[in-house]
Amino acid sequence: MPCIAFRQAQLADLPAIIALLTNDVLGQQREDASSPPNPKYVDAFQAVLADPNQLQVVATQDDEVIGTLQLTFIPGLARLGAWRGQIEAVRIAETHRSSGVGQQMFEWAIEQCRARGCNLVQLTTDKARPDALRFYEQLGFTASHAGMKLAL
Amino acid sequence: MPCIAFRQAQLADLPAIIALLTNDVLGQQREDASSPPNPKYVDAFQAVLADPNQLQVVATQDDEVIGTLQLTFIPGLARLGAWRGQIEAVRIAETHRSSGVGQQMFEWAIEQCRARGCNLVQLTTDKARPDALRFYEQLGFTASHAGMKLAL
Repeated sequence: MPCIAFRQAQLADLPAIIALLTNDVLGQQREDASSPPNPKYVDAFQAVLADPNQLQVVATQDDEVIGTLQLTFIPGLARLGAWRGQIEAVRIAETHRSSGVGQQMFEWAIEQCRARGCNLVQLTTDKARPDALRFYEQLGFTASHAGMKLAL
Repeated sequence: MPCIAFRQAQLADLPAIIALLTNDVLGQQREDASSPPNPKYVDAFQAVLADPNQLQVVATQDDEVIGTLQLTFIPGLARLGAWRGQIEAVRIAETHRSSGVGQQMFEWAIEQCRARGCNLVQLTTDKARPDALRFYEQLGFTASHAGMKLAL
């Protein structure tokens, strides 16, 4: 497999990340692929970059962005004051699905959680994505919780 | 019902919050009720207080802490750059359960999410707490997702 690299995203990666978010069965209904990027994405990305507890991750191959996820480090009192790593908005480019990139990206992300002293990694996955649930179970995640959402 | 108030927790509230976390069917196995508080809780609370995107909430009645939850505000690119409010570690004092305090505390927390511009509130609830799941459904939450955890 050609070499895949992982790093924190920069502002120049924003169009590629939006393209990944949009090219998705659920994302295509709620994202905006227009160019230049919708200012809402630019504002959100500035907030992510300014927050030391957020890490927008990109997977690249030959400088092309082929995957992304967002990692959030959350301090908290529960579980003896445990830090949690939380993963959101996971996307792999259509051309690279089932190639092992997703697994590599998760292994890299989980390593970042360890390095930050987290003793738990958590995510929610839409029940409309049964393949994703199996993927996470193979990585060792347990579906012990219900993931509940309230739209405002 | 006597007047219930809600506010951000202060360091002086820490023992009361730890007592709430511990007096719980799942918490009693993983928390530490010793006094003075385990330094891990103190470190974690300092991290929560130092992070402008964290809000440790307490519900009080006559200056006594009778409930708590943690609110995290998470910026992100997905959903057109939506901010999410996330709720963790919800506890109500045994003597005040089923009294409406939980609902009031959630209404207050959801209002904070609106005030911060979130358009989604999310939480996960352990499947070992079926009553909690029904409580969240009554508040309008939908169990659309699986909540997955990986212990490190």
